[in-house]
Amino acid sequence: MENFIAYNPTSLHFGKNVLNNLGTTVALFGKKVLLVYGKGSIKKSGLYEKVMFQLNEVGAKVFEYSGIKSNPIIDDVNAAAEIGRKNNVDVVLAVGGGSVIDSAKIISIALHVKNDAWDFFEYKIKPEKASPLIAVLTLAATGTEMNPYAVVQNPKTGQKPGYGGPLMYPKHSFLDPQNTFSVPKDYTAFGIVDLIAHSLEAYFGKGDATLSDKFVFATIKEALEFGPLLMEDLNNYDLRAKIMYAATAALNGLNSYGRVSGDWGVHGIGHSLSVLYDTPHGASLSIAYPAWLKLQKDRIPERIEKLGFELFNSESVDDTIYKLEYFFKLIGSPTRLSDIGINIETEKELIYENMKINKVNGANQKLTGPDFLTLIDLMDAE
Amino acid sequence: MENFIAYNPTSLHFGKNVLNNLGTTVALFGKKVLLVYGKGSIKKSGLYEKVMFQLNEVGAKVFEYSGIKSNPIIDDVNAAAEIGRKNNVDVVLAVGGGSVIDSAKIISIALHVKNDAWDFFEYKIKPEKASPLIAVLTLAATGTEMNPYAVVQNPKTGQKPGYGGPLMYPKHSFLDPQNTFSVPKDYTAFGIVDLIAHSLEAYFGKGDATLSDKFVFATIKEALEFGPLLMEDLNNYDLRAKIMYAATAALNGLNSYGRVSGDWGVHGIGHSLSVLYDTPHGASLSIAYPAWLKLQKDRIPERIEKLGFELFNSESVDDTIYKLEYFFKLIGSPTRLSDIGINIETEKELIYENMKINKVNGANQKLTGPDFLTLIDLMDAE
Repeated sequence: MENFIAYNPTSLHFGKNVLNNLGTTVALFGKKVLLVYGKGSIKKSGLYEKVMFQLNEVGAKVFEYSGIKSNPIIDDVNAAAEIGRKNNVDVVLAVGGGSVIDSAKIISIALHVKNDAWDFFEYKIKPEKASPLIAVLTLAATGTEMNPYAVVQNPKTGQKPGYGGPLMYPKHSFLDPQNTFSVPKDYTAFGIVDLIAHSLEAYFGKGDATLSDKFVFATIKEALEFGPLLMEDLNNYDLRAKIMYAATAALNGLNSYGRVSGDWGVHGIGHSLSVLYDTPHGASLSIAYPAWLKLQKDRIPERIEKLGFELFNSESVDDTIYKLEYFFKLIGSPTRLSDIGINIETEKELIYENMKINKVNGANQKLTGPDFLTLIDLMDAE
Repeated sequence: MENFIAYNPTSLHFGKNVLNNLGTTVALFGKKVLLVYGKGSIKKSGLYEKVMFQLNEVGAKVFEYSGIKSNPIIDDVNAAAEIGRKNNVDVVLAVGGGSVIDSAKIISIALHVKNDAWDFFEYKIKPEKASPLIAVLTLAATGTEMNPYAVVQNPKTGQKPGYGGPLMYPKHSFLDPQNTFSVPKDYTAFGIVDLIAHSLEAYFGKGDATLSDKFVFATIKEALEFGPLLMEDLNNYDLRAKIMYAATAALNGLNSYGRVSGDWGVHGIGHSLSVLYDTPHGASLSIAYPAWLKLQKDRIPERIEKLGFELFNSESVDDTIYKLEYFFKLIGSPTRLSDIGINIETEKELIYENMKINKVNGANQKLTGPDFLTLIDLMDAE
């Protein structure tokens, strides 16, 4: 086992009507609130009103930035930070899914610098300070609600890198599974894929950590057991709750303690698809993971076998990959490029070039140029 | 799933030579340090010297309180708090196992009141403030290094209650598995029993929390898999590390999120044995758990069956209990009162009376007076 520091200061408020404590929690940090959200789905769902009620109750002064895209871009981060700086806000309140919360994390550090926020991603500057961030989560998927990482896209450069640091944990995150009832079927499935992928990135990472491996199996098994039931019953509170908590647990540190690092090669592949085709993150991962496993099956057969035995009582690598792929299909997430309308004949070169630009690689399982080509073919295989 | 707040602010520094950062970490909180430890085993092992070196390096002024007993008593807590108050210490540094750290938690809140510290346990006073607590753990067992609970005994009243609150998390805990090399074989086994028992108390608690159940299985399986190997190889770093981290994970919240509460009935039974006979905590639990499961087997057969299936691939309640008991024996922990020299003929009444005084009960599985008598018999059965 590798040395590690287990530290996660986020308070996660989980359950029915936890938003009743949102106003008083925000007020702990000040009166001037920068409210960040997406393209208005929280207005349709009624969540916006609930949040505003909470903020008004404590006399908060609210400055809004809306329009964060589902693959969030750095321009929105800069624009929101500008509003926050101008109005000298005390606290950032993110209401939405991973893209909104990830953007808000970068906003919370960008508030304290004059630079373009992209400078963080290029390590030109380091954050010295962050405004307190409070998150209200509406989508069970990325785990950003209880970790210090953010992924943001730069449309100019075609990059979608991750960034993180101890200042970037939300102080408080509010997770009411009822707020995920309005997530449509496809995005519900993509969220399930995402939480499985996060667990797998940890599992295929560097370093031997047997208890963390067992937590990985636990988290994925929760998704395998209850994901398909949720797909048939989208307004079931308890099923929404199980998947929502599993998504948090998949990337709050638990799956990684005692390892050098996760792998994250598959996320790199997925990010390339998202940058090029605006493919939803989870959809890109259900295409990339089976291909990656097929590439790795002769390189790390024992590791894949162990996974298959624990998850599926499966005894072979091929059977393990087949069953994971079958699960993705079962919940309705794509597993081939053709499923999302990408024609490999015309697109292969473009995907390959973007994988190079994005420096797609794994921290543990190194990927080479020839691997990129194999992966693209495998993402298109029969 | 029940509503919950997942919050654990402790920084857990885990691994080889993490004590190299002890001095600078203590210095974050001030210069005057109340150092609390046990009966001198840290002097024999050389750990005392290492700690003092770290403290001297940062120019700390150290006030010592030694002599905390392995079932810690309130008198030591009061005496240590008196030294801390008199010298106006900035930070409490606990070096030892669960008893030392539990005592230090109460000391850290007692420093700020003039009362007898027992008043906290009787809810006569509430802590308003705590001095920062830093822990250096030398025994993998109780999980106190990453939770806000303490158990302390009152020899005058024969009680051994628990107490806890958000002020009582250690700020930092340092876990170097090398510091557990000197733990003798029997106490190594008792620690393994303790971590299993903590996981089971969560599992048999109130409320349906499927992912937390899976984390329980993961943690116990880690102990079942590596505990016996460690018993044969006490100086194996990696095995010590696995058991040490499992003991932390067993009681840092993870096994409980989404439940109303754990059960803790078995701990109550164990505490009675410890109060009466100074039985090591883990030893009392390996005697009490099989008896408790036998009492419960017709009351909650499905819950026990599910556990047995996950842990042992076992299909019956009796087989599950047999296998757990067999495991405790295998690692050398007692499973009957007679194993620790208690003669039920002469002691039955005394144990029964103490169980009444200590109000032994479970939060989920209620225990009655007749249950006490059955349990005592079962702890003595062939």
